[in-house]
Amino acid sequence: MTDTDDLARELDRAHVFHSWSAQSQTSSLVIASGRGCRVWDHAGNEYLDFSSQLVNVNIGHQHPAVVSAIREQAELLTTIAPSTVNLARGEAAKRIIDHAPEGFRRVFFTNGGADANENAIRLARLATGRDKILSTYRSYHGNTGAAIVSTGDWRRVPNEFARGHVHFFGPYLYRSEFWATTPEQESERALHHLRRVIEAEGPTSIAAVLLETVPGTAGILVPPPGYLAGVRELCDRHGILLILDEVMAGFGRTGRWFAFDGYDVRPDLITFAKGVNSGYVPAGGVVIDEPIAERFDDRVFPGGLTYSGHPLAMASIVATLDAMSSEGVVEHARAIGETAIGPALADLAERYAVIGEVRGEGVFWAVELVADRDTREPLPAAAMGRIKAALVARGLLPFIQDNRIHVVPPCVVTEEEVAEAMAIYDEVLAAETTGGGEGRE
Amino acid sequence: MTDTDDLARELDRAHVFHSWSAQSQTSSLVIASGRGCRVWDHAGNEYLDFSSQLVNVNIGHQHPAVVSAIREQAELLTTIAPSTVNLARGEAAKRIIDHAPEGFRRVFFTNGGADANENAIRLARLATGRDKILSTYRSYHGNTGAAIVSTGDWRRVPNEFARGHVHFFGPYLYRSEFWATTPEQESERALHHLRRVIEAEGPTSIAAVLLETVPGTAGILVPPPGYLAGVRELCDRHGILLILDEVMAGFGRTGRWFAFDGYDVRPDLITFAKGVNSGYVPAGGVVIDEPIAERFDDRVFPGGLTYSGHPLAMASIVATLDAMSSEGVVEHARAIGETAIGPALADLAERYAVIGEVRGEGVFWAVELVADRDTREPLPAAAMGRIKAALVARGLLPFIQDNRIHVVPPCVVTEEEVAEAMAIYDEVLAAETTGGGEGRE
Ligand SMILES: Cc1ncc(COP(=O)(O)O)c(C=O)c1O
Ligand SMILES: Cc1ncc(COP(=O)(O)O)c(C=O)c1O
Repeated sequence: MTDTDDLARELDRAHVFHSWSAQSQTSSLVIASGRGCRVWDHAGNEYLDFSSQLVNVNIGHQHPAVVSAIREQAELLTTIAPSTVNLARGEAAKRIIDHAPEGFRRVFFTNGGADANENAIRLARLATGRDKILSTYRSYHGNTGAAIVSTGDWRRVPNEFARGHVHFFGPYLYRSEFWATTPEQESERALHHLRRVIEAEGPTSIAAVLLETVPGTAGILVPPPGYLAGVRELCDRHGILLILDEVMAGFGRTGRWFAFDGYDVRPDLITFAKGVNSGYVPAGGVVIDEPIAERFDDRVFPGGLTYSGHPLAMASIVATLDAMSSEGVVEHARAIGETAIGPALADLAERYAVIGEVRGEGVFWAVELVADRDTREPLPAAAMGRIKAALVARGLLPFIQDNRIHVVPPCVVTEEEVAEAMAIYDEVLAAETTGGGEGRE
Repeated sequence: MTDTDDLARELDRAHVFHSWSAQSQTSSLVIASGRGCRVWDHAGNEYLDFSSQLVNVNIGHQHPAVVSAIREQAELLTTIAPSTVNLARGEAAKRIIDHAPEGFRRVFFTNGGADANENAIRLARLATGRDKILSTYRSYHGNTGAAIVSTGDWRRVPNEFARGHVHFFGPYLYRSEFWATTPEQESERALHHLRRVIEAEGPTSIAAVLLETVPGTAGILVPPPGYLAGVRELCDRHGILLILDEVMAGFGRTGRWFAFDGYDVRPDLITFAKGVNSGYVPAGGVVIDEPIAERFDDRVFPGGLTYSGHPLAMASIVATLDAMSSEGVVEHARAIGETAIGPALADLAERYAVIGEVRGEGVFWAVELVADRDTREPLPAAAMGRIKAALVARGLLPFIQDNRIHVVPPCVVTEEEVAEAMAIYDEVLAAETTGGGEGRE
């Protein structure tokens, strides 16, 4: 700790109002710089980042090519109105389209994930002339008006000021809402449930189904075989659009450019943010299938924002996607998941009864901690708090959500870094399960 | 025009989906670089920017100190989660607090103006335990869920999916909704109207009145004497909070740091974006009066976003506010309004009957064009389109809204640039009013 760290903490306490927190209980962890999977405070204390912050720094901290591109664009032109034409914006849109399915041609840019979902919802409502948006209880879609009410988790509840939202249960075999015992059964029953909700809500009142391809914050709930294809089929049957939220799952996280590339499904609207530029400059957006985009060729699209297609953000997207392509970052994420993270987590699960389930792919894994493997009772909050503190104390920045450790390093994480992190998880789980914690074997 | 301009246009047409437009009718004006009040395309064609883009580039394009700060922070650390402590974030918050009224101590950061208003509305609802937000028909507050439904103008109508919003009429003497003939009468009657709306809605159901201090896009409607103080008094009488939206009016635009500094009024929540860093990096936020902030000391604030307090954005705020202070940018905006823009527009108004009213201050002026000075019938859209095209053809980027030219250059505009712009306005008005336009004298 240096004086600068203290100063940063003092200013923070005095003047910064923090997200999703009681203000007296915010973190005092100072971060001043970073590189790859590591970050440092001003005193030089180092942390291994297995959170990718908010699961957004896919390319790692401070990638030199992206930093250079930001510096160059800053020198040229930082900002310009969305109504003008700007080369960086067209180049960024083209890069994104290059990874989208055939037939997608246009991108609407926003500042982040929430406003991406807001605008996808707007497009779906205007294109269908219908109101309702169906989304799952286990989901997070952002903090603004419609995004927070399409969100399923607790954060929705104090914020329910939007109309036209209906929630349903998605597949999650480990904690099945459908009394299922196999992935196939979970998939089939979850589709039955969705079909019944659609029928009971009135199919012609429904504009879109909005899904995280792989629900992220809710637990990295990899969809079972046939589920997404089944949702698509239900949508098609009723003229309902399918919005896939790829804000967290997209751009490398699963080891694919889009998470849905791994499934037999084609969305109508794709929302993105985070990984598209690893958050180096705030950015997000909607990739729009051409039949929807075309409806606004001669009709005004009633949505917009001052920083839509912001040049600095656009330059960072171009550089990020180019570097990810040329350096094989997405392929690396897939491989490291298969050969290093997956096997290491499976090994931990064998050794610690406190681990109820491990699931994931690429650099997108959840380790579910339970007080009892049979009842699957979640490990209590106090134990999770101890685990979190112990991980940070050992120099690992974890992503802890409810009773889970999300193992979500940057896509560029090396085998050595995985080994280092696994040793820390191992140590901490050992201490917790022998030291009187609730998760004892 | 160079090949690069063509390429930019081609990519734009093919892949960029634009705000608030029919996609077949978007602009083909390429902007590649800028400096101060000037921007250029790739071929070197120059434009004098009297729009400040979306009235956000208050410090002018590419201010060297702000560009340097962005470049330096980019080198150090572009992005970090909001839950950490970061020095640039604390420094930015402190700079903003330095300009806020006594007693304001904390800032919640967002990516722009819409999410600033979303979070101010959230804070007001949670602090009061009430639902309704009152705002004016002549207003714009942003494009997301609650922000677009608190907006009064046409953009709200296709987007009404939020509940708890009520609209009322604000003061606008030139087109009075209250049959008033003097500023004093307009103020008094507008307050009577608001009092009646509050009474009829049920004062205990109302969380906040949300007002642009000086409604911007709606016409730069400088509030008449006593109006804002009267609104404050009505709010106090009923335990209603007052949110002042300073997204467009704040940080120098009116020749004051906050527009409300010119009035006898103290808000509870202040929303900002645009001028705080001239949009060099997407940023906005809410300045929170301490009695409201304190309520979340031990209670979770249920709002947040991935890029809240983004280091790159924060560094640009610090540099912008420091440069504005040390270079006297705000004082300059006030002086240039008083000595150059105001008098020049008054002169045009004397010479052209098509000008119905000129109003404003600082670098925040509206010129209202009418087909008839007596009936005040707005100049038709076709004529406004001709005027816009003629201004651009002469190298001036205008801000045209309905039947008005908003004269809104960067705060750093020089006397020479004002003279240059006025000569162009003069020429174009002359051509329009003698050349067969509807606005003929
Ligand atoms: C799946 C998903 N959608 C949307 C969002 C919201 O993104 P933002 O915080 O940039 O508004 C998030 C953020 O965590 C997310 O994980
Ligand atoms: C007064 C006011 N509030 C809010 C906004 C919305 O800001 P943003 O476009 O950054 O979301 C604007 C944008 O023009 C505005 O003028």
